[in-house]
Amino acid sequence: MADSKPLFSLDGDPMAAEALLRDVFGIVVDEVIRKGTSASEKVCEWKEPEELKQLLDLELRSQGEASEQILARCREVIRYSVKTCHPHFFNQLFSGLDPHALAGRIVTESLNTSQYTYEIAPVFVLMEEEVLKKLRALVGWSSGDGVFCPGGSISNMYAVNLARYQRYPDCKQRGLRALPPLALFTSKECHYSIKKGAAFLGLGTNSVRVVKTDERGKMVPEDLERQISLAEAEGAVPFLVSATSGTTVLGAFDPLEAIADVCQRHGLWLHVDAAWGGSVLLSQTHRHLLDGIQRADSVAWNPHKLLTAGLQCSALLLRDTSNLLRRCHGSQASYLFQQDKFYDVALDTGDKVVQCGRRVDCLKLWLMWKAQGGQGLERRVDQAFALAWYLVEELKKREGFELVMEPEFLNVCFWFVPPSLRGKQESPDYSERLAKVAPVLKERMVKEGSMMIGYQPHGTRGNFFRMVVANPALTRADMDFLLNELERLGQDL
Amino acid sequence: MADSKPLFSLDGDPMAAEALLRDVFGIVVDEVIRKGTSASEKVCEWKEPEELKQLLDLELRSQGEASEQILARCREVIRYSVKTCHPHFFNQLFSGLDPHALAGRIVTESLNTSQYTYEIAPVFVLMEEEVLKKLRALVGWSSGDGVFCPGGSISNMYAVNLARYQRYPDCKQRGLRALPPLALFTSKECHYSIKKGAAFLGLGTNSVRVVKTDERGKMVPEDLERQISLAEAEGAVPFLVSATSGTTVLGAFDPLEAIADVCQRHGLWLHVDAAWGGSVLLSQTHRHLLDGIQRADSVAWNPHKLLTAGLQCSALLLRDTSNLLRRCHGSQASYLFQQDKFYDVALDTGDKVVQCGRRVDCLKLWLMWKAQGGQGLERRVDQAFALAWYLVEELKKREGFELVMEPEFLNVCFWFVPPSLRGKQESPDYSERLAKVAPVLKERMVKEGSMMIGYQPHGTRGNFFRMVVANPALTRADMDFLLNELERLGQDL
Repeated sequence: MADSKPLFSLDGDPMAAEALLRDVFGIVVDEVIRKGTSASEKVCEWKEPEELKQLLDLELRSQGEASEQILARCREVIRYSVKTCHPHFFNQLFSGLDPHALAGRIVTESLNTSQYTYEIAPVFVLMEEEVLKKLRALVGWSSGDGVFCPGGSISNMYAVNLARYQRYPDCKQRGLRALPPLALFTSKECHYSIKKGAAFLGLGTNSVRVVKTDERGKMVPEDLERQISLAEAEGAVPFLVSATSGTTVLGAFDPLEAIADVCQRHGLWLHVDAAWGGSVLLSQTHRHLLDGIQRADSVAWNPHKLLTAGLQCSALLLRDTSNLLRRCHGSQASYLFQQDKFYDVALDTGDKVVQCGRRVDCLKLWLMWKAQGGQGLERRVDQAFALAWYLVEELKKREGFELVMEPEFLNVCFWFVPPSLRGKQESPDYSERLAKVAPVLKERMVKEGSMMIGYQPHGTRGNFFRMVVANPALTRADMDFLLNELERLGQDL
Repeated sequence: MADSKPLFSLDGDPMAAEALLRDVFGIVVDEVIRKGTSASEKVCEWKEPEELKQLLDLELRSQGEASEQILARCREVIRYSVKTCHPHFFNQLFSGLDPHALAGRIVTESLNTSQYTYEIAPVFVLMEEEVLKKLRALVGWSSGDGVFCPGGSISNMYAVNLARYQRYPDCKQRGLRALPPLALFTSKECHYSIKKGAAFLGLGTNSVRVVKTDERGKMVPEDLERQISLAEAEGAVPFLVSATSGTTVLGAFDPLEAIADVCQRHGLWLHVDAAWGGSVLLSQTHRHLLDGIQRADSVAWNPHKLLTAGLQCSALLLRDTSNLLRRCHGSQASYLFQQDKFYDVALDTGDKVVQCGRRVDCLKLWLMWKAQGGQGLERRVDQAFALAWYLVEELKKREGFELVMEPEFLNVCFWFVPPSLRGKQESPDYSERLAKVAPVLKERMVKEGSMMIGYQPHGTRGNFFRMVVANPALTRADMDFLLNELERLGQDL
């Protein structure tokens, strides 16, 4: 009975498994690698949710299905999914497809192990350490610690948790009620995960003090000073500042040197959320945007964004050399981290984290780095900047486009001003009408499948487009396409 | 310049990308799918860390490498990695390789999107909901909510955070200092993530009250009552009980009905950590082990364990229909969750979670379920139980094996008693000497690469082996191999 097989099971039948996987891989090559990256194909094939549910036949039933049916399902899943690898997918802070990174992901998935012990992840324990060392070196640290987290939000939470633990180790056992009220500081342009994290970690969103930004979206260090004094006057204990290198909407870089000075004066932990901007450290030309980052205590950096490593690849880097990660998070589970193992159990890095099982996120980045070299990755970063500048120049030449501001990074923020609104800047409902343009164009581009680009309101500004130049396969032709396509989609507005 | 290419870059060259990926896929098929699952190959090729570092040449350099070199690196990564798909890998609560799940993972990686909005993940937003609905139905709920988390530890944290938010919504803004001291309850056999989570969430590990277990490792409901009274007497407010369905070492199932009665009496949130045992719900024969689970408020269930979906696939299921997840975790980031989108923004599920970007974890499970059907998955669960019983019977027939206890699940815990210790149960150093056997055998099996099985001390018991029967490709021959191999490895001890 233990040797019998269900109808469509491939259990213990590597030949059948191999045949299925070859077919699926063939579909991936045809539909994603080839068609998905082709400018002449659609970015997405829009369906209303109810229709898509019908098309996909999502229900899970008692009966299994034969291989041909499974292959058809793979084709449909791909068909109706958005092609984030498409050269006209500009919607998020990640896009494109790096074949070496994808190769690393396929190998990772086939090996299917957890990052917690050297015993079951010997290659990846050593590799993670090497990759983190390299990222730390780019920050400017010759020693330190770190770990890959499931996304930048959780990296940011780690930083907050480590900072409070370092100041009040008691917190681990006794909790926040044993501590004075704490305050952390970040700018109004910071990522929303700082507030989410404060809530999750039990600090409450009120513990997040919001620091003013200048007209470019950069934290104002003088206001940081003011907010610290204010918090202290209210009886709270400041413990952490989270600066941002590459804000989500405007792509702003906080002035790290000046912020580090403030942190030093007040003895505060400096965290830099460089999830988006961290990859600029690879570029000799542009890394000055992060000047001062070496003075941080922790850095969150997501190579799955600009470096196209693939979701998720989020490093939390630490300057600490006192084993803070392990002291803060460790629980010495005796079933997993036995101390009588025959190898150095310091290699069992699983007790550094709040997860138990943890995916392998280093191989995709390592393999891509080996293939590209630091030089190749640097060239990509520089190329992205060059394309963003090109886009800005082209955009200025055209009548219907208005920059929100000159970008300093790869977020090019602008309004498309349709024909009916041109020259009407003085009319009282101009802003209101302009704010309605982006959602209409977005609907049109998605329904046609020609392109995807994000928009949002921002402070007092109405909806504008946020173009993100991240895909390494982009060329000037794609920038021209973006502008032409917006003109085409909006010509009747 | 934006059109120039670095030496080895495949950027914008889908033909070259395709060729590389075909080669890598070929390596995966040969080395993992074929050799990795073959009983005649090694489970692992052990290297000391220093030697392995040299062999892998991990350093990341400025110069990129040519494709042949990258392919060689893929081969070496696989060669020195542990084959968790091997029929003699018994080391963790996951093992084996389901080809449909792997196909789903490869498609997921190629599409590389984030689960947060319908806009960029239309298929996966709908699919996640369908898969969660199916899992909830197996729990016994016709409605509810849920989300896939990066591992069971984080699922457990979500449950704790939701429970405290439901009772004290103020916590989100004002933090734990605005609340009375809280207490949560779990058994001494619970997973270590409960304490890790309490520390991370700011409650502190002291807020976790440890309830006694019986000789089989099941929570004693009467002691739960006692602990609740004790906590109240000390001025703490009980708010959650975390029961376990399938403990990590012994595989014990807490008596959910009796625990639910206690929770009901005291108005406590009942969370069930069924990360390991949840998959038993698929079996009509064995699901009685989780009787009462339908009375829980939340359930953590990891289909990446017994169902071989692949790391990570961790569902947090909720009975709640009041949008608690979104209220507790939402922050309404206007750049991502615009309210003026052209589709129903309730489909943008990203604000339910504390992550921002979130991997797609549903497709691998969905595709495997479509292929196997509920019946096929049920057969796998039943088969695993049958093999565990077979192993127990065979083990009893042999002289050198001693069961820790009769298992009720797929964790078969036993000592191997080597020839020199047989019949010496009465000697004063017997336990001490026996505890040293498992680490020695573990070292031998790993260095030979013949097999991997975990061991641990447990309470007053010295090191014993924990055999986990999870890989669906296992047969009786593999159980016999396990026993024979331990005898062979330990014959001189």
